[in-house]
Amino acid sequence: MNYLNKIYGCNLALATDLYELTMAQGYWKCGVAESEAVFHMFFRKNPFKGGFIVTAGISFLIEFIENFRFTNDDIKYLRTLKGNDGKALFDNEFLNYLSSQKFDGEIDSVTDGTIVFPYEPVLRVKGKILQAQILETAILNIINFHSLIATKAARVCLAANGDPVIEFGMRRAHSIGGSLGASWAAYIGGCEATSNVLAGKLFGIPVRGTHAHSWVQFFDSEYDAFMNYAKGNPNNGIFLVDTYDTKSGVYNAIQAGKYLNQNGYKFFGIRIDSGNLEKLSKEARKILDENGFKDTKIIASGDLDEWIIDDLKSKKAPIDIWGVGTKLVTGYNEPFLTGVYKLSMAKKEDCNWIPKMKISEENTKTSIPGILQVRRYSDGEYYLGDMIYDITLGVKEEDSDIATSFGNNNQFSDKIEKRDLLIPIFRHGKRVYNPPEISKIKEYVKYELSKLKPMYKSLRCRKNYPVVLEKNLTDMKRKFIRELKRRNR
Amino acid sequence: MNYLNKIYGCNLALATDLYELTMAQGYWKCGVAESEAVFHMFFRKNPFKGGFIVTAGISFLIEFIENFRFTNDDIKYLRTLKGNDGKALFDNEFLNYLSSQKFDGEIDSVTDGTIVFPYEPVLRVKGKILQAQILETAILNIINFHSLIATKAARVCLAANGDPVIEFGMRRAHSIGGSLGASWAAYIGGCEATSNVLAGKLFGIPVRGTHAHSWVQFFDSEYDAFMNYAKGNPNNGIFLVDTYDTKSGVYNAIQAGKYLNQNGYKFFGIRIDSGNLEKLSKEARKILDENGFKDTKIIASGDLDEWIIDDLKSKKAPIDIWGVGTKLVTGYNEPFLTGVYKLSMAKKEDCNWIPKMKISEENTKTSIPGILQVRRYSDGEYYLGDMIYDITLGVKEEDSDIATSFGNNNQFSDKIEKRDLLIPIFRHGKRVYNPPEISKIKEYVKYELSKLKPMYKSLRCRKNYPVVLEKNLTDMKRKFIRELKRRNR
Repeated sequence: MNYLNKIYGCNLALATDLYELTMAQGYWKCGVAESEAVFHMFFRKNPFKGGFIVTAGISFLIEFIENFRFTNDDIKYLRTLKGNDGKALFDNEFLNYLSSQKFDGEIDSVTDGTIVFPYEPVLRVKGKILQAQILETAILNIINFHSLIATKAARVCLAANGDPVIEFGMRRAHSIGGSLGASWAAYIGGCEATSNVLAGKLFGIPVRGTHAHSWVQFFDSEYDAFMNYAKGNPNNGIFLVDTYDTKSGVYNAIQAGKYLNQNGYKFFGIRIDSGNLEKLSKEARKILDENGFKDTKIIASGDLDEWIIDDLKSKKAPIDIWGVGTKLVTGYNEPFLTGVYKLSMAKKEDCNWIPKMKISEENTKTSIPGILQVRRYSDGEYYLGDMIYDITLGVKEEDSDIATSFGNNNQFSDKIEKRDLLIPIFRHGKRVYNPPEISKIKEYVKYELSKLKPMYKSLRCRKNYPVVLEKNLTDMKRKFIRELKRRNR
Repeated sequence: MNYLNKIYGCNLALATDLYELTMAQGYWKCGVAESEAVFHMFFRKNPFKGGFIVTAGISFLIEFIENFRFTNDDIKYLRTLKGNDGKALFDNEFLNYLSSQKFDGEIDSVTDGTIVFPYEPVLRVKGKILQAQILETAILNIINFHSLIATKAARVCLAANGDPVIEFGMRRAHSIGGSLGASWAAYIGGCEATSNVLAGKLFGIPVRGTHAHSWVQFFDSEYDAFMNYAKGNPNNGIFLVDTYDTKSGVYNAIQAGKYLNQNGYKFFGIRIDSGNLEKLSKEARKILDENGFKDTKIIASGDLDEWIIDDLKSKKAPIDIWGVGTKLVTGYNEPFLTGVYKLSMAKKEDCNWIPKMKISEENTKTSIPGILQVRRYSDGEYYLGDMIYDITLGVKEEDSDIATSFGNNNQFSDKIEKRDLLIPIFRHGKRVYNPPEISKIKEYVKYELSKLKPMYKSLRCRKNYPVVLEKNLTDMKRKFIRELKRRNR
């Protein structure tokens, strides 16, 4: 833990959109800053034509919220801001109030590594509206990004079908901070290691590396280059063979490999970074085998993603290890998740909770009112489906009926297991949950994926995992939409 | 300046791919660590179907290099790393050597905001091979990302054709660090402001914000919500009108606007975030005008990019200000630039410089040997074309002939201006250049774009800006390829 603290040198409370603060001033000025509200974060769609999202970043977010406070320096800066008419945007008295704020509400969320689906709440904040509102931008920034990369990594690793995948993306990641988050998320999503040394140091992720083309170019010949690399890094016997011509590269690597063997070291592998990877890997495998290096690995890299890996696997390219960079750490070609954070309930002083929702001309932009929870049903082997319910309204139907609604044949209804995905993270502003070690999160992603039926894991997923709205909640939502349309007509 | 220092809390020397360090150990072990080498960074293609790249991030990179050193803690971590056989990857003596390293070579580069084109060197490092090699990953990470976003911002602003563009992307940016870099790059690329308060504080960028849908949902009616926002933020009179129904939202905003006017404040604008923006903005404009609010601005947001803005402008949508978030800060839908860093010359002790290049089965992956400079020719009004030359070989042809090769009619050859784009940044490891203030960089981008002929600025650019290889360099490159193929046969 203390990830953010290790990475960032500045206080992060201002890592927010300005409108969170103008709204905060608004709530404060009209005397409702401490009214209670419930917000949920959810995603609007699965990315990459796939069937799932791996939630990630909760560990970072917890730390962000625990340390959330405005410093004197932050307040001083806010005091300098001007509105559209050139006058001070913020009231001094409001800024004093703001400087005293620490989050003292409740947060429930799924844990890092949980597989989720569109429209399911992944996180719920219940607390004073001012505080719950202000956290919006950081929640979305942190969860959207890490979940994007963890999901992409899971897909890449599914395509690699058990072969090790190494994340090589630092040079194309979005800033140094983005490279660190990407390495973390790629690792929990299934990658075996990263090339990013700082991520290795900060998060305890294994680091791996070979050498660049420049190494080969620097020496008078490729043979010299490989021999020098073997001598300089005998414990890291991997040679990049495509600087000039891949085939002769393999022969030169074999010479260096023989040197390593003769000196008690290992000819671990060759790397191919360009050209027709199917053809080149087959040729290389043949040459290596013929020379007695049957255990020497072939590592492929160069603009790889899940689709290209899947294609190479289907063509039986004898590639053992996949180095995936750019397209993994940037979430190519959908470089963002559609996570949003919506108000779903509000309560003024001693009044009752009032449901809240956003209606839009675009149907996909409407939200679900209530204080929500997600119940996941399983038959022991696989997840059957999820139900979104309101914890106040409760669940109307029997488990067996719900399971049937997921298309379960109900034959073994006594074996149906269920669990609620959102668990308490903060109570009265205090953290009540210990984020697990990174290795445990990684294991959990693996477990979650094992529970997901293969059809939802195919790269191009054609059938959505069942997510239903509980009946009481459905009724409440319908009634509320009618009421809302009437009121705003 | 001191951007990185303000953002990051950890020493950044380990922000590198592991292979830079295994190569460093290799160079050191075979006694060539202090041999001289020349590397260039260049981009392989223009992104987004466009015709140019706005270079950005040099200011950050300069700071990275000035502060570049390994701490005891970094070395301690490197000592724990294991090779493929489980033994220590790094030699203690090498790590001692590494810990003494500070960059003491030369760097020449274009300045932040310079418009560049594929294959042109944007940065040259000349120094000890170990040092020049180790900087690769950070150079690429920093320049690729910031240039990506600055280029995207320039495109978005070109599409907006002079209308203000505000960057709203923090919630979808890649990490908090990524959001800060994106806000910085978007601002120099042409955006007027950002919603990211921390970026405002750290970089001095103007910050702007309105309010969210949750603000409207929280109150009993939209009318109440707008009135409360007007009272709470009278200097920021902007109302988001699409929470329930955009048309009635505009009427409610007008009520709040009247209140503002009556109290000496300004009804600055309305924001529309969803739905058919053309239709809704036209309806809203009509209603605002009919009610005497002809100066009240219409702000559009919601999944905008340069293509959508261009379309809305062509349909005469009366939108005054564009809030662009997700697709700007993620570089959608090409979330990475193809910048690479290639060895182009090397020199052992007292020997001559030897050209170096990467050849590939993929032609686009070959590099240019030499110690390179870019000369840009202009007719005073527009840039005519660029020439890449080797500073040792010099320039063979007359300026007028070179200008003619760009398709210039040569009628006014006496008016031809030229300048070399790479300027000295480091000499003997000392910075000899002061990065300008952010406002100056922003002005420079504007100037650069004004010098680029309109055809190279169209969103879908169909003709490449002319970049030629100088004749001596062309001859040297041809000769060297022949030699290289012979040697490695």
